Amino acid sequence: MKFSFKNDYSEGCHPNILQALLQSNLDQEAGYGEDRFCLQAKQLIKEKMNRKDSEIYFVSGGTQANLIVISSILKPYQAAISASTGHVLNNETGAIEATGHKVLSVETEDGKLRPSDIIQVLEGHRNVPHQVMPKLVYISNSTELGTVYNTKELEDLSSFCKENNLYLFMDGARLGHGLTAEISDLTLEKVAQLTDVFYLGGTKNGALIGEAIVINNPVLQEDFGFHIKQKGAMLAKGRLLGIQFLELMKNNLYFDLARHANQQAMKIKNALQEKGASFLSDTYTNQIFPILNNDLIEVLSEKFEFYVWKKIDEESSAIRLITSWNTPDQGVEDFIEIIKNN
Amino acid sequence: MKFSFKNDYSEGCHPNILQALLQSNLDQEAGYGEDRFCLQAKQLIKEKMNRKDSEIYFVSGGTQANLIVISSILKPYQAAISASTGHVLNNETGAIEATGHKVLSVETEDGKLRPSDIIQVLEGHRNVPHQVMPKLVYISNSTELGTVYNTKELEDLSSFCKENNLYLFMDGARLGHGLTAEISDLTLEKVAQLTDVFYLGGTKNGALIGEAIVINNPVLQEDFGFHIKQKGAMLAKGRLLGIQFLELMKNNLYFDLARHANQQAMKIKNALQEKGASFLSDTYTNQIFPILNNDLIEVLSEKFEFYVWKKIDEESSAIRLITSWNTPDQGVEDFIEIIKNN
Amino acid sequence: MKFSFKNDYSEGCHPNILQALLQSNLDQEAGYGEDRFCLQAKQLIKEKMNRKDSEIYFVSGGTQANLIVISSILKPYQAAISASTGHVLNNETGAIEATGHKVLSVETEDGKLRPSDIIQVLEGHRNVPHQVMPKLVYISNSTELGTVYNTKELEDLSSFCKENNLYLFMDGARLGHGLTAEISDLTLEKVAQLTDVFYLGGTKNGALIGEAIVINNPVLQEDFGFHIKQKGAMLAKGRLLGIQFLELMKNNLYFDLARHANQQAMKIKNALQEKGASFLSDTYTNQIFPILNNDLIEVLSEKFEFYVWKKIDEESSAIRLITSWNTPDQGVEDFIEIIKNN
Amino acid sequence: MKFSFKNDYSEGCHPNILQALLQSNLDQEAGYGEDRFCLQAKQLIKEKMNRKDSEIYFVSGGTQANLIVISSILKPYQAAISASTGHVLNNETGAIEATGHKVLSVETEDGKLRPSDIIQVLEGHRNVPHQVMPKLVYISNSTELGTVYNTKELEDLSSFCKENNLYLFMDGARLGHGLTAEISDLTLEKVAQLTDVFYLGGTKNGALIGEAIVINNPVLQEDFGFHIKQKGAMLAKGRLLGIQFLELMKNNLYFDLARHANQQAMKIKNALQEKGASFLSDTYTNQIFPILNNDLIEVLSEKFEFYVWKKIDEESSAIRLITSWNTPDQGVEDFIEIIKNN
Repeated sequence: MKFSFKNDYSEGCHPNILQALLQSNLDQEAGYGEDRFCLQAKQLIKEKMNRKDSEIYFVSGGTQANLIVISSILKPYQAAISASTGHVLNNETGAIEATGHKVLSVETEDGKLRPSDIIQVLEGHRNVPHQVMPKLVYISNSTELGTVYNTKELEDLSSFCKENNLYLFMDGARLGHGLTAEISDLTLEKVAQLTDVFYLGGTKNGALIGEAIVINNPVLQEDFGFHIKQKGAMLAKGRLLGIQFLELMKNNLYFDLARHANQQAMKIKNALQEKGASFLSDTYTNQIFPILNNDLIEVLSEKFEFYVWKKIDEESSAIRLITSWNTPDQGVEDFIEIIKNN
Repeated sequence: MKFSFKNDYSEGCHPNILQALLQSNLDQEAGYGEDRFCLQAKQLIKEKMNRKDSEIYFVSGGTQANLIVISSILKPYQAAISASTGHVLNNETGAIEATGHKVLSVETEDGKLRPSDIIQVLEGHRNVPHQVMPKLVYISNSTELGTVYNTKELEDLSSFCKENNLYLFMDGARLGHGLTAEISDLTLEKVAQLTDVFYLGGTKNGALIGEAIVINNPVLQEDFGFHIKQKGAMLAKGRLLGIQFLELMKNNLYFDLARHANQQAMKIKNALQEKGASFLSDTYTNQIFPILNNDLIEVLSEKFEFYVWKKIDEESSAIRLITSWNTPDQGVEDFIEIIKNN
Repeated sequence: MKFSFKNDYSEGCHPNILQALLQSNLDQEAGYGEDRFCLQAKQLIKEKMNRKDSEIYFVSGGTQANLIVISSILKPYQAAISASTGHVLNNETGAIEATGHKVLSVETEDGKLRPSDIIQVLEGHRNVPHQVMPKLVYISNSTELGTVYNTKELEDLSSFCKENNLYLFMDGARLGHGLTAEISDLTLEKVAQLTDVFYLGGTKNGALIGEAIVINNPVLQEDFGFHIKQKGAMLAKGRLLGIQFLELMKNNLYFDLARHANQQAMKIKNALQEKGASFLSDTYTNQIFPILNNDLIEVLSEKFEFYVWKKIDEESSAIRLITSWNTPDQGVEDFIEIIKNN
Repeated sequence: MKFSFKNDYSEGCHPNILQALLQSNLDQEAGYGEDRFCLQAKQLIKEKMNRKDSEIYFVSGGTQANLIVISSILKPYQAAISASTGHVLNNETGAIEATGHKVLSVETEDGKLRPSDIIQVLEGHRNVPHQVMPKLVYISNSTELGTVYNTKELEDLSSFCKENNLYLFMDGARLGHGLTAEISDLTLEKVAQLTDVFYLGGTKNGALIGEAIVINNPVLQEDFGFHIKQKGAMLAKGRLLGIQFLELMKNNLYFDLARHANQQAMKIKNALQEKGASFLSDTYTNQIFPILNNDLIEVLSEKFEFYVWKKIDEESSAIRLITSWNTPDQGVEDFIEIIKNN
């Protein structure tokens, strides 16, 4: 069997989680997220982000988190703004539009939105009431291109949004990876201060399922549970989510796992750079997009699974490699070995 | 801590499931339900229901299953018909309406729909195009009142639906309990023959999460995966659902667990009947609704958790007791002991 | 050709409206409701209801008004409450549900909602967040059964709604008829004080098309134009609506037309009562529901069109007769003549 | 008062329409589009397009037509494709998304879609089921830029759509102008053959309100009336729409009015070309976008109303001029006079 660099959800979950599930399995707990694990996990997250007034809800996956958050915030005539590479625009089968809302797309170089990008959307939507009203800025960190926001960038975006009555929502499916990137100076605490809503992704960072939606803006906290239930996202056995986040948050396991994934990717990146490879985007997280000769790609394909992402020219293509919380040294070393020898 | 008869999702999952999760945990698998466990589980379910042409999809919970199935079938102007006690009408925060569809309510005595109930709805909706078009019949088995359909009843309903161009959809959140009720002559095979769509509920029968949606009508199979993704119900680690259903289906564990729950409820029912208690509905599954004197309810409340369901008169109320796949003999015996002594 | 008592929209419009259209036809006006006629008509309505802070919008028809108002007010998890006879429940092809909202139905005797009816709905929806949250009370005046609210009833309902954080919305498709019923002590001014939103129906009272939505609650006024545009209800030539309401409001033509319709119906009602007929509901507006012998119904059918509304027994049925702003004395007299002679 | 070239819906309607309204005003007619005028108008349209098997429905406006047609055709996971200039993308407040569907945007030079544009969208949406499925091609003729499709172009597009299982829908808000453009060889008959659905716009071509939706593909005809009713677009007095289209279709008035509008625009275009002006797009219909010196724009603004469409550089801007079925020679001549003298 080939080793896979296709994504960061190929394996099950961190062993601590399974142990915790085993230990508590036959205890009777309250349903729908009222269990003691959910309560403890929420408490722990609040402590780590140093924000007691936030509200936290657990759901199963990223598309679910995105559609519930966005549809809970926007009025029928309001729209979200996203970089054209945004997950909500391309990879969620129109989940946001299915709740009635347009997502306005902005071309960017690196998958990151800046105030200047948003100004351009706002200026294009002044013909009241004949156009949707842009009201929410959707960003992801790390982005779909593997890039990250630093503190200054997020502060600028946050200030701009406040000045323009826009809500700022961070898709954190890979938030761990974003915050533990070696070039990142952003912290969980800062994210909690600067966004209206964000989520901590579990699925792509060592959980079986689970994203922790954190609502910082009190205006957006009201009645949020109704949205979760209505969209079919409220698990009867909410304990499954609580137990996982409790384990991930203990001793900063969540960040350790993400850092591990990033480091494994950086080893490969360094090896490729030494061989002179260029990249589609300059990333420091667990996604890298090296441009390789097609012959090399073929050789690598014999032992590894990954996506050929984009044809560059007749002789070369960009591939996407994703490492995970569980990517072993051996897989990385074997991959690097082939690179060095070809 | 009090023992809880509040519901059938208070505990974790059957130990076999946790073992299977442990064994396969670090294997790399394809995402989004393309893993080998999902494939095997689907195969096994098809064999057990002796219907190879059905398609099977796994989702996390019942509300999710209901909203995806119903919204995938109905055109914008079409409506579902449900008994007034139906879960989709009362307990899902308008999840069906949120997808754009009306659910037409019919009063019934026992939570079960019969052709005569549906005729009355059809006749009330002849004013084309000023009214919604009833197009789907939603039933649950066992019902929200704990009652069950027998083969003859389901055959009649199925024939009626076919003659009237209506789709028949069975909510099987407690299908195991329905099929293993001592008075039931209905089989999984029959359900697969007589319905257009149904699901096998895992959450309330020993899984952590999971419902297996079975689409028997080929017309309704087309492109179903899109709906699951769009509604945020497609798990990246679909293996979590596949592993669970594989374990539940092996050696008929699914039915054994449901039968156990039913039997524990029947023990209590019998003890109550011996003491002369009456019941809100005559049930043979894991939900019972005895009418008890308020003093007795208070005594029971000291040691047990359960819902007081409905005030009957100044002196008595109906309570709801639900047993589960994991309800131990001790809990049942302690409960019966109190009844006998009061 | 038979004379029709089927409805109040069989004829075109009051001649004053056509004259006003002719006179202004080739003037260039601003589009989308910014024309001088819309502005004048709004001004005139505000004066007549003595409420300057209300906002007024014109749309084409009643279903459109209902779906725009209700969907603009409710959050995704909130529901409307309606009498089971409500137009939004039975005669609008699920238009409200198509915008994502459930309409909760309450059985009433006369098509009118009272606080006691609503209390019962509120008490049945306490299982947060597993049920929709009732948030808007939908009433119609005159109702679908031809009955009317008096001032005391509307005051009680309005107070109750305020105390319970519910919005009160009056469907006024036949508001003229409701306010000019001989037994009505309610005024337009009172309606504007006691409701959050209501509309003045034009279509059923002498206009070609048009309903004037009046938003009294400032919270609900924000951005309302976006909803109208998004639902496809904003006419490029908004003047068509403005001109009509301007003519209808001048010299109280609107109320004169409705009173005429009511009076014609009352003549028939009186004639029937003299012959000893009974009625499905005791109405004083332009809809009456007499119960007649089938032989008489047949005789009447030879010269008149009307709906046979409900079978009463083998020998008799209730019919529905609707008179309009334009029902001539001759039609009424011919109808009465047959009654007297049979 | 300044003469307005802002749009083609500044005036009322063609006098024939008002005469017809006057003549029939007090006749009693069936409601909801079952009146004799609607039936006659539909018959006449079918004859003119030589297609008896099409079905025709009248609605009030373009946004309404677009949202009803598109939402009636697409399943929840399917999307429309539009040129980035498409009315549905920019000028309808997210009306399509509000019905749950994404509109995929393609950049074009002239507002027209070609097979090559669509191929690119299809190829970008192969990741089943993680992306929406493109299923409907939305085009407008004349386009929002004033350009037109010729027969060859529409044939190519139609063939491509058939081969790729895509529906082809033509927004004909300005269909009259498109078909009577001097460079157009396209006919109504051809449009009816080559599209699945299209509409004949009345609002922008001499009617008070009204668009005639023509459904050529029998698969899309089923139950269409339900959609119209559900979206609040079914007028009780449908006669208002029938009478207008009957008058417009008689003696080809519809095409004469559009040709007049085109010709008035071409006079201005020619005068501008003689003065050496350039244009944003090369149009032959009633919309022109000349690029003028800001000084000249200011002079023109003293006597005329029009939109300044786009800043070109510090000294010049493009303006948009729209002529209508009723634009008099005097207005055109006055405008040209200023051009000649400046």
